[in-house]
Amino acid sequence: MKVNGVAWRSIAEDGPHAVRIVDQTQLPFAFATLRLTRCDEIAHAIRSMQVRGAPLIGVAAAYGIALAMQREAADASLDAAHALLLATRPTAVNLRWALSRMRTLLQPLAAGARADAAWQEAGRIAEEDVAINRALGAHGAELIAAAHGRTRQTVRVLTHCNAGWIATVDYGTALSAIYQAHDAGVPVHVWVDETRPRNQGLLTAWELAAHGVPHTLIADNAGGHLMQRGEVDLVLVGADRVSRNGDVCNKIGTYLKAVAASDNDVPFYAAVPSPTIDWELADALREIPIEERAAEEVRIVSGRDASGQRAQVMLADATTPVANPAFDVTPARLVTGIVTERGIAGPAELARLFAPARAAA
Amino acid sequence: MKVNGVAWRSIAEDGPHAVRIVDQTQLPFAFATLRLTRCDEIAHAIRSMQVRGAPLIGVAAAYGIALAMQREAADASLDAAHALLLATRPTAVNLRWALSRMRTLLQPLAAGARADAAWQEAGRIAEEDVAINRALGAHGAELIAAAHGRTRQTVRVLTHCNAGWIATVDYGTALSAIYQAHDAGVPVHVWVDETRPRNQGLLTAWELAAHGVPHTLIADNAGGHLMQRGEVDLVLVGADRVSRNGDVCNKIGTYLKAVAASDNDVPFYAAVPSPTIDWELADALREIPIEERAAEEVRIVSGRDASGQRAQVMLADATTPVANPAFDVTPARLVTGIVTERGIAGPAELARLFAPARAAA
Repeated sequence: MKVNGVAWRSIAEDGPHAVRIVDQTQLPFAFATLRLTRCDEIAHAIRSMQVRGAPLIGVAAAYGIALAMQREAADASLDAAHALLLATRPTAVNLRWALSRMRTLLQPLAAGARADAAWQEAGRIAEEDVAINRALGAHGAELIAAAHGRTRQTVRVLTHCNAGWIATVDYGTALSAIYQAHDAGVPVHVWVDETRPRNQGLLTAWELAAHGVPHTLIADNAGGHLMQRGEVDLVLVGADRVSRNGDVCNKIGTYLKAVAASDNDVPFYAAVPSPTIDWELADALREIPIEERAAEEVRIVSGRDASGQRAQVMLADATTPVANPAFDVTPARLVTGIVTERGIAGPAELARLFAPARAAA
Repeated sequence: MKVNGVAWRSIAEDGPHAVRIVDQTQLPFAFATLRLTRCDEIAHAIRSMQVRGAPLIGVAAAYGIALAMQREAADASLDAAHALLLATRPTAVNLRWALSRMRTLLQPLAAGARADAAWQEAGRIAEEDVAINRALGAHGAELIAAAHGRTRQTVRVLTHCNAGWIATVDYGTALSAIYQAHDAGVPVHVWVDETRPRNQGLLTAWELAAHGVPHTLIADNAGGHLMQRGEVDLVLVGADRVSRNGDVCNKIGTYLKAVAASDNDVPFYAAVPSPTIDWELADALREIPIEERAAEEVRIVSGRDASGQRAQVMLADATTPVANPAFDVTPARLVTGIVTERGIAGPAELARLFAPARAAA
């Protein structure tokens, strides 16, 4: 999508031996890019959330394997790169999916053929991500257009975390629907959850402002109140992993919005590219390991000081005990539908929607 | 309660013409007090949240009237002080209650008798607050002890905002129950919601640490996940206003915890002194005006810098639209019980519990 009128992707090839990423830890205050040439730089970028968002993490990891293969293409190097990247974030399924796809392709190849094959495959994964998210956004946009058709009013969408183009290669997931509805002339306004502790809502607000979509930033605490007052028409989020029965694992706090949406008869949708669906997973609440992140993410807040320089403030000192689970699971019973590149399905119909593809795979 | 082994109240008389308050905008990093001698200083302290918490606001306002009467006791002065103080915070019922009580007492008196009468009445309101919160905490502590009796495990209580001694004159409301359970030897652990945007959870964490109660700070987003995992035995909050049918108006985000508690069969209680109950109020969702506070509370976060000095960081600049509703309403259907100085009542039994007092009033 565009930044200051220039089209960008969150990750792009920069010559044949490097990728350029948007450094998301600098947003929303500065738009900066980084050139990465080594697998361990990719791993660091994922771990430190310079790149973040389940789809983008998968693509970045694929390029991480490719960069590792350019340096050393032996089995041991492939295994080490795979292990290093897999350990960066435990919850997102796309990471595992992309790494498996790369290894399955590369393992049978002679070492000398791996570097080129890996680079091409990473590029294919990136292009597929763009195509998938363009397609799922078109389906999601129909949902927003239909709500407008019913009310003839601005459609008020609440979103949590950042499911925008910078969480993918381009378009985004939940925001892909919003961008496409907006670009088609459907009046839409977005309630943007701040999304503590990492405040990814500020990334969403930055994206929406850059694209010209009306929006309002709110504390995570405010969404239920807005639903009670009839000020939310639709909750639309991304996901880090969706089970085959439609349980949605997403950024911590999503479940609270889903249960409030259910209590107020507000539809709740998750927009997910199919690589985010984990067909092996039956019961997300029991089976997904939830990443526990550092206490400092809660204790320390990053922003800008009065002179515009990056700065941090400590909310609590190291003596204050902190728990920081990064994701939660919204059970399928609270999910109105899953928006995918193949269309929108109720949780119970998700498997049927993808049955041909899974049979073919 | 105690700070560094010394007993404090959040507001106390400092000679016959001043009160001393704990400056809560300095907490949790510094424990500082302020001496206030004028009604407009009291109004500023309430507005800027140097004093906060529904019960404490009521007491502070009563002293505000008393300080105004010491300067000028004519009707016009009484009316002006009443109007100034009433406008400071629109949601808390205790403010209105305390101001009405002061005016009802003072209006019939000759101007010359008002200053002494007002000072004594403010003192009575303060002492009543202490006695009420001691009593309601004893009832709430029985709830915690009963949970321990059932499980023989540490009772894990989730609380939102600060309903501690610094939100009252002493003891607190929700935390009064926790302090008394802890002091009686019942093992208790408190999940402390950060409570964006003002982060009053840090005040709660400070109070609990000062008193030695085990606790863990969490982002507001995390509570639902903890309930899903069976890690919350009880939600216990304060309230800014409770309707006669048991609707609970409290800090924004409380409703999200209540609806999640209901979804997970976790009991949800509000601990409220009876002046917080608004017997005129039938339907809190429709009738309570919800205070919309400044956008800067969301955009700017206060804490300490690396050298320990107070500092702020900007999360978003002034171009980012913000909504900041300060309270929400938890409908009675989600409330297990209201903890009062007369005991614990289900929402439907609340009026009956107070029927004799209301008949006598």
